[in-house]
This record gives sequence, C-alpha cells and structure tokens, in this order.
Amino acid sequence: MTMMEEMGQRAKEASQVVAQLTTKQKNDALLKMATALRAGQATILAANEADLASAKEMPAKFVDRLRLTPQRIDDMATGLETVANLDDPVAKIDRGWVNYAGLEIIQRRVPLGVVGIIFEARPNVTADATALTLKSGNAVILRGGKEAARSNQAIVACLQAALTESGLPKDAVQLVEDQSHVVATEMMHLTGYIDVLIPRGGKGLIARVLETATVPVIETGAGNCHIYIDQSADLAVAAPIVVNAKVQRPSVCNAAEKLLVNQAVAEEQLPSLVAALREHGVEVRGDERARAIVSDLVPATDADWDTEYNDLIMAVKVVDDLDEAIQWINQHSTHHSEAIITKDMERGRAFQQRVDSACVYVNASTRFTDGSEFGFGAEIGISTQKLHARGPMGLAQLTTIKYQITGDGQIRQ
Amino acid sequence: MTMMEEMGQRAKEASQVVAQLTTKQKNDALLKMATALRAGQATILAANEADLASAKEMPAKFVDRLRLTPQRIDDMATGLETVANLDDPVAKIDRGWVNYAGLEIIQRRVPLGVVGIIFEARPNVTADATALTLKSGNAVILRGGKEAARSNQAIVACLQAALTESGLPKDAVQLVEDQSHVVATEMMHLTGYIDVLIPRGGKGLIARVLETATVPVIETGAGNCHIYIDQSADLAVAAPIVVNAKVQRPSVCNAAEKLLVNQAVAEEQLPSLVAALREHGVEVRGDERARAIVSDLVPATDADWDTEYNDLIMAVKVVDDLDEAIQWINQHSTHHSEAIITKDMERGRAFQQRVDSACVYVNASTRFTDGSEFGFGAEIGISTQKLHARGPMGLAQLTTIKYQITGDGQIRQ
Repeated sequence: MTMMEEMGQRAKEASQVVAQLTTKQKNDALLKMATALRAGQATILAANEADLASAKEMPAKFVDRLRLTPQRIDDMATGLETVANLDDPVAKIDRGWVNYAGLEIIQRRVPLGVVGIIFEARPNVTADATALTLKSGNAVILRGGKEAARSNQAIVACLQAALTESGLPKDAVQLVEDQSHVVATEMMHLTGYIDVLIPRGGKGLIARVLETATVPVIETGAGNCHIYIDQSADLAVAAPIVVNAKVQRPSVCNAAEKLLVNQAVAEEQLPSLVAALREHGVEVRGDERARAIVSDLVPATDADWDTEYNDLIMAVKVVDDLDEAIQWINQHSTHHSEAIITKDMERGRAFQQRVDSACVYVNASTRFTDGSEFGFGAEIGISTQKLHARGPMGLAQLTTIKYQITGDGQIRQ
Repeated sequence: MTMMEEMGQRAKEASQVVAQLTTKQKNDALLKMATALRAGQATILAANEADLASAKEMPAKFVDRLRLTPQRIDDMATGLETVANLDDPVAKIDRGWVNYAGLEIIQRRVPLGVVGIIFEARPNVTADATALTLKSGNAVILRGGKEAARSNQAIVACLQAALTESGLPKDAVQLVEDQSHVVATEMMHLTGYIDVLIPRGGKGLIARVLETATVPVIETGAGNCHIYIDQSADLAVAAPIVVNAKVQRPSVCNAAEKLLVNQAVAEEQLPSLVAALREHGVEVRGDERARAIVSDLVPATDADWDTEYNDLIMAVKVVDDLDEAIQWINQHSTHHSEAIITKDMERGRAFQQRVDSACVYVNASTRFTDGSEFGFGAEIGISTQKLHARGPMGLAQLTTIKYQITGDGQIRQ
C-alpha cells in the first residue's frame, strides 16, 4: 500500500463511523473544534508566521490569502459554529413508495463517504471544508498548497484534538503533508477510497485535477459571468446591477466580466453604463460597435471574451438581439451565472430557459450566486458542471442517496 | 477541429433545440421512431446478417447478444412507445423559495445536454438509449462495438429519418462510425461537448472508460451482490430468495453471487440452501467453515470473493455475526445490491443503514434492482457510484438542475 492508500483506508474506516453519528454528536464535535481553534490561536499564528516568512517573495495578493490574524482564526471558529447550527441532511427521506410487488422502497440521503479537497493558499479552507464534510457525515482528506503547510498542520492538529476529545476517529480529518506532485497524482487516482474530489482554487489547479483525476471530480469556481441589457431595460435598474456585479468584489467567480448590450438601446444606455463603471475605476473594453458609441474604450481582442479577469476590467459587446446574446453566452460562458436586465417578461423567461448556466438571473446581480445568499447557510464551492451538483453546493450536495427496500419474501417473476 | 469535435459541436447545437421541445413534440418523434424501426425491419435484419456473418468465430453468448430478430426489433419499437408514455422530467420545479433580499429562486429540472454512450455487442442499446436521452431532452452520441457496426448504422438511419420527418435535428442522435481506439479516446476527452459519458458493457469496458475519460462518467452495471442469512432467518423465506437471486437470470448485474450465512444457523440451513441451489444447476463454492458443514462444496479461493460470475456459480461463507457480514460486504461488494434475510427488525435496519450499497434489501431478492421493477418505467443503467445518480437510472437521472432567479433590481450588499 502506498502512503496515500493507507490514508485512504483510514479515511474510509473513519467515514463508516462518522456516517452513523447522530446530529448531536456531530454538532458537539464541531463546537469543540471551534473552541480548539480559539484556544490554539497562538500556535496557529506562529505556524502561519513561519509560512509567511517563506512566502515573502510571493505577490501581495497571494500573501494576503495566506495570512492569518486573530480575527481570521475567530472567523474560522465562528464558521464551525454556524455549520453546527445548520440542518443535518443525513438520513432524511427524499421519497418513498411501494412497488407493484409490495416492496417498500425508501430513497434516503446518506453521506458520500470520503471527500477529497485540493486547495491552494487559503488556510481557512481547512476549517471550512472540515465543518461541511463532517456535518454531512463524511470523512475528508485535505491537500493544501505547500506555502500554507505549517498553518494547515497547526489547524488540523486542533481539529483532530477536538475529534479525539469527542470520542470520534481523528482520521475523519486528514491532511496530506507530502507536498510532491507524485503524491497529489496518487490522491487523484485513489479509486475505491475517495468518493469525490473537489478542487478549490485557480483555473490551473482545476484544469490539472480534471485532466489527471480518475476519481469523480466536481468542477467548481470558474466564472466568466455575463449581463445582457435588453432593449426594454430600465437604465435605473441596469446601472446599479452592472456596477454591483462588476465592482462589489471583482476577485470572485460570480463577479460579472462581460456586458452585452442590445443595439436598440446601446446609443442611449452604453455611455451612462461606461461612465458608472469608470467611476468605480473599471477599465472598460469594447468591440467595434461599442467603440463606435464610446470611442475611447480599450479595444477588446478575441481572447477577452473567454477571459475571467477577476479584476476591475469589463468587456462590452453590442448585440443585435436576444438570440445573439443567448448564443454568445452559451458559447463563451463557463456556465456559472448570467443575468438579463429587461422589463419584458417573455424575453426574461426565454433568457432563463435558453441560457445554459447554473444560475440565470432576471433583473438582479450575479453576485447572489452563493450558498449563504441562497439561504444554504454555507457552501463548499459553486459547481459549474452538470453532474450531481450545479450552482452553490451546501450540505445536501455533500450527500448521495441509498435505496432501502423492505419486503416479506418477494422474489422476481 | 477533429471529427469527434465536429460531431460534438453538432450534438451540442441539436441539444439546444431538443432541450426546448414540448413533451408532445418529443413523444411524437418517439412514436415516429417506433414506426420507422418496424418499417425498416428488412433493412435492419440484412445489416444484422452481415454483422453476424463476420462474427461467426465469436462465442455463442456474444453472437446471441448481437443477433436481431423480427421480435427483437419489435421489442425496440415497443420500448420507444413505452418511453413516450412516461412522465417528462424536464422543466419540473423541484423547489422554489424567496431569499432574504426578495429574490425568487426556482430550482428547475433541465436536460444534461449531450450524453455519450459507449456500449458493446447489443444493437438494441441504440434504440433504448435514444429513447431515454431524447425524452429527457438530451442529444446522444452513440459508440457501439465494431461487431454491431452495420446493425447500429441501420437502426440509427431509421431513428434519424424519424427525427427529420418530425422536423427535429437529426444530430440529436449520432453514431460514431470510426471504430478506432484513437477516436474512442477522443470521445472520452470531449470536454465542452459531452456532459456525461455512460459506458454500458463488461468490466473491461467500464474500467477503460474510467481510466481514460476526462469528461464526467457514470459507472454502471458492476455487480457482486451478497445475501446474508441472519441467525433469525426463516429458511422458508431465505431459500426462495437465494434461488431467485442466483438463478432467475444469472448473467445480469443484480444477480446474487455470494451467500453469507450466520454461524448460528449454518448447520441447520446451509445444507438445504445448497441443495436448493444445486437443484437449479448452481455450482456452490465454499470457505472452510462452509465445507465443514457441506463437505463436497468446491473450495472457494481468495479471488472468488471479488468475482462477478454472471453464471450459475455461488460462493458461500460462514460468518460470526452481523458485524462481520457488514464489514465483509463493504469490503468486497461493488456497492450495487445486497440483502439480509432476517426476522429481527433491529438487525434488518442496522444492515440497511450500514451496508454501503446503492440498494439494500430486507427479505427480498436483489433481482428487483431495476428501473422497471422500481417503477421508473425504464432505465439507462444501474449506477454503482455515488455522484449524481445511484442505483437504477431512469429519465430523471438524465437531467440536472438550473436555478432561475428573478428580482426587481436587487444588488448584493
């Protein structure tokens, strides 16, 4: 057995225990974990200091993601407490019926088993992912970026101590400490041990996992969100939504990156939309038709239309009609979130029906695509694939179903 | 663009049309397909004769799967008519709510998009898979075994003619005619075009697809089903179930392959169970403890416990208790279907809770794991993985969800 297989075996054994816990047992463990994180603050900060010292050469954005503070540690603890308060999806009955032979068939929610998470610089993922996987009755194998190795180890030590104190198997939460690519690849090939692998991080990481993994993967977090301004759009509705979707938090996947404007209202509305964006420091790029209206837009290139900027940049394209907008979006989006601004109900409904994305909005900001905003309480990521989970993934999306069938001697004819 | 990418592009375009069809449009096309198959009987049989002529050297079982008869063609047509009569899962609303900001959030069932099916000798998969994918609003790309190439072409020609006659895009159903491994690999890597790939066939095919594919795969059809005879089992219930699960159709994945008997009743019940199986021509193999009770059992080797025989063979093991049975099953099963025979409600429930398989039975034959038996009307396969679909996959499992969110200008704070 390789080291990863041994880890997988321990996770599998722990998952069988965790799957059978009561909600109270899981909640108690989550609360103990929160206490342990707060109590371990000094140790965690010291480990984080060591990580930060080695990461001095990295870009400021990266260092910011890596950095822990007393506040950020408290936020992690609060996150664990929040998840303790969420509804437990496990053992719920989705539906049940009796078949022609008199068999009682119950479709029941059960944990997935072992969840693998591969992530990058943010050490808080360690606590967040643990909270969601444990509450949904799963064991988790975490592999963080090597720059956060010491921080992650310190956090996992707190979480495991809380598990032990709760009388639960500490292998319900394991951290891959070997940072080599060979071991990462072994993890992605851990068929029979890992039931689902969720990469959390940039495009490069997600692409590598999709390419390499032979265990089932859920693709999350790639965004190239569009807003389409219909010919009946009210500028007073459109402008705040466009600005909010672009600037409220430009680094995240549900931020809008592209603006499509119907040619009938482009002359009237585009100058105001561009001015509103520029007021917030956005660089606006445009296709030829957009530049014919606002001449000083930065020319957009072909590459722009498929780029997730994660920055204060937005590209504008003038389109002939709803059909062109929908076709364009279905070709260029990452199927995450798109919005139409319209007063016309028929076109709003057509847009929602025909745009092939996880979340399709009428007259609202794409920034609402989020587990908390949806009311799920928390999320492990936003799925942009169609299998198993689509859109914000909460606790329910970390479960699967099982059929429990009860008879009194039925045989098949 | 490669040939497969072009095919994928055509499928994607067709899928966008098919996704928007009304139930009546889809049903009309399915009925026209049934008519076309019956009208094309002579052509299909001639194509099948040519395939059979080339397959003379193959094993009899293989040739039987490949062979079409007027009856089998009529069965395919009836299958299309049956699916036309099933409930359409598309556009159904799973749930809807209003969030804190006043956004109306609707979770709606939508088609997956493009489904890929890779299968082996049975040409009837062509019609069956088309029926289910079309009714659920998807386009399908089919790749059958090379031995059935001419039969599949003849069937697809009928299905496409019916699509054209219905005014629908014929690319909603496409057959990969190039039988090379290179093209099969291209199909498994068709990210952005194929939303899910479902292999239908033997273990080798499924393993190869899981190993090679970078598009999402649903693993189906691997069975190594167990029946556990509890210490409180009633032999009058146990014997008919064991015999039914083993012999009613031994070649399929929901047939029982292994029998675990509690040591407390082994001496009393095992001789009768073995005798009942032998009456139906079953070769019974046993571990040491089983052979100590029935001395002339064929000795079971380690390999037996992980083997799906698909034949009139069953291996018996005597276990100490329920715990050993559950642990054994969780280690050796393919997580398909398992059954306990018991009069004890507590142990029955524990078995259903702790056995980690798609379908867990109390006092009934594992042969019921089937879309029709469950009441789904039809099935595309039985999923043995935990993501997206588990157990029999009907029409609903060929859909995903989309969130349609409607506001009146909401922005995120």
